[in-house]
Amino acid sequence: MHTDRQDTGSHDLRHHGDAEVRDDGARLTDLAVNVRADTPPRWLRERIAESLTGLAAYPDGREAREAVAARHGLPAERVLLTAGAAEAFVLLARALRVRQPLVVHPQFTEPEAALRDAGHTVDRLLLREEDGFRLAPDAVPEDADLVVIGNPTNPTSVLHPADTIAQLARPGRTLVVDEAFMDAVPGEREALAGRTDVPGLVVLRSLTKTWGLAGLRIGYVLAAPETIEELERAQPLWPVSTPALAAARACVQPQALAEAAHAAHRIAADRAHLVAGLREFAPDGLRVAEPAEGPFVLVRLPRAAAVRRHLRDLGFAVRRGDTFPGLDEEWLRLAVRDRTTVNSFLQALDQAMVLSQH
Amino acid sequence: MHTDRQDTGSHDLRHHGDAEVRDDGARLTDLAVNVRADTPPRWLRERIAESLTGLAAYPDGREAREAVAARHGLPAERVLLTAGAAEAFVLLARALRVRQPLVVHPQFTEPEAALRDAGHTVDRLLLREEDGFRLAPDAVPEDADLVVIGNPTNPTSVLHPADTIAQLARPGRTLVVDEAFMDAVPGEREALAGRTDVPGLVVLRSLTKTWGLAGLRIGYVLAAPETIEELERAQPLWPVSTPALAAARACVQPQALAEAAHAAHRIAADRAHLVAGLREFAPDGLRVAEPAEGPFVLVRLPRAAAVRRHLRDLGFAVRRGDTFPGLDEEWLRLAVRDRTTVNSFLQALDQAMVLSQH
Repeated sequence: MHTDRQDTGSHDLRHHGDAEVRDDGARLTDLAVNVRADTPPRWLRERIAESLTGLAAYPDGREAREAVAARHGLPAERVLLTAGAAEAFVLLARALRVRQPLVVHPQFTEPEAALRDAGHTVDRLLLREEDGFRLAPDAVPEDADLVVIGNPTNPTSVLHPADTIAQLARPGRTLVVDEAFMDAVPGEREALAGRTDVPGLVVLRSLTKTWGLAGLRIGYVLAAPETIEELERAQPLWPVSTPALAAARACVQPQALAEAAHAAHRIAADRAHLVAGLREFAPDGLRVAEPAEGPFVLVRLPRAAAVRRHLRDLGFAVRRGDTFPGLDEEWLRLAVRDRTTVNSFLQALDQAMVLSQH
Repeated sequence: MHTDRQDTGSHDLRHHGDAEVRDDGARLTDLAVNVRADTPPRWLRERIAESLTGLAAYPDGREAREAVAARHGLPAERVLLTAGAAEAFVLLARALRVRQPLVVHPQFTEPEAALRDAGHTVDRLLLREEDGFRLAPDAVPEDADLVVIGNPTNPTSVLHPADTIAQLARPGRTLVVDEAFMDAVPGEREALAGRTDVPGLVVLRSLTKTWGLAGLRIGYVLAAPETIEELERAQPLWPVSTPALAAARACVQPQALAEAAHAAHRIAADRAHLVAGLREFAPDGLRVAEPAEGPFVLVRLPRAAAVRRHLRDLGFAVRRGDTFPGLDEEWLRLAVRDRTTVNSFLQALDQAMVLSQH
């Protein structure tokens, strides 16, 4: 684990999984994008479709904000709805007074990209494979006044203990915890969303992954009222569309939360199946970053770039790992899919690894 | 006509027509919001609804960008899709290197609000009623390096000649023309969209007003490729949602353009009817800002605030004028509606003016 003040180096921070399936996604089975399969569910599509009759009116986000606040047991002034987590990262980078931001890597690259675009020099704390990509809180330098960490972390699938993260809080420090995948963790254990006892805490949530709403642009920020106000001032007018607001209201209803909880347990079972299958490649030099707690798994394997190309020819898209700071071309990220898909994938992986030797 | 460097003064730049119909809009006939009535049309709602099956994927704006570019006879690198014009104003304010911005008023207040929020001191050029709210190009100070003007202008409904506006172009100056309502002008005469011969020209377009898509957040910017690049860098990832992209593609198809052209002619006829009716109130001191060329009309009348309150009691929402710099509490803005609605409105106005005398 070490910190590192540098330019973006060789990592393309603007590479995302969607680029891996963009142009011939139709013929590829997608293990590249971390969105739950077979989403959005039909009932949710219907709720969104109903909102289309009201498109002539400007969006009114008040009800959705109240609903999201209630879901976390918070007052509405601690909630800001955003056009996806991506907008939240831009707002954090541009609206808050920050001198020395630090991002804990490997992690989703958009927070660092947004901070750099806003003119900041960004420190990196690189967690290491030999530490299981786990965080020692005292590794974060005291002068960092904005710390960004993902939990569970994309792409390592590490779930940090909430207490470990809370220990990063300091007077004068904004502690940003990206919980975009927390609702895929059974019981949302280790969630900081809803906590008001951690000073400077900013929690980001997404509805994209569990609900298959990547195309709709909806997420939210939970923070102290004065931080929410600062971020809100930097938002454009009417930042979240009416269909996205309808989705936010729908996804925080008790029934939806129960469905998400059910999905989280299914993901855990499917992930266990995937990891068990991957372990069989240990003699070939494949290693899984464990324990994996998110809806994706990070693996290290020889000739990963060639394997990825062969997988593509065999009909499977996986996410390259080398665009994540702290990883290199030996890493791949795999989204958890159902058993049938995983079984086909594991067969293809077997072939791809053989092909990559030639 | 004079220029004015000041703080926001007494004008609430963040007041918009939607606030006038927000909470009891259901019981009010809306002449406050400048969105065409009975929109979006059913065929467009269906096109948008079809896009909902693809929500699990991240938005891919390339096709929509090409389609919008083709509609204006421009290459795609001169087009940026935005989450409504509101996002475009924030991008312009934050991404471009600007020292001395100037906004031509009275005009939509969001550009100035966005510039102020980005830390700029904003000059104002106030057009005057006695000049018919028309622009003399030499009234814009030479040192203004960003000039914002609306055409046709909200709320005055003045359509400036394209040549007059083009004369504002200077080396080193960005000339922002908000053409959000231009597609409601028959033949889009005086449009600068599609022109590549005006240095520093940035044209903003909206699909909100003609198509009733205020809730969807979709608009676009036309500018030189290097300006588009600068603005794009300041956008969050995936700034425009999949349903909004579907709408953009649909609204620039030839059939849709023909429908918009037809609507523009109908609006012109309905506006003539509204203006004729309003002129009958001349003996009561009501004056119409003429010629009105947009889908709304600006009127000055005694006791306007009281008239507005009485209209509300009688079931009609109209837009207060006093939040626009250069106007005061004597002004109201009225959206053009069909003849039947206009006739009922004129009757209510008659009553409201009588009631306001007591």
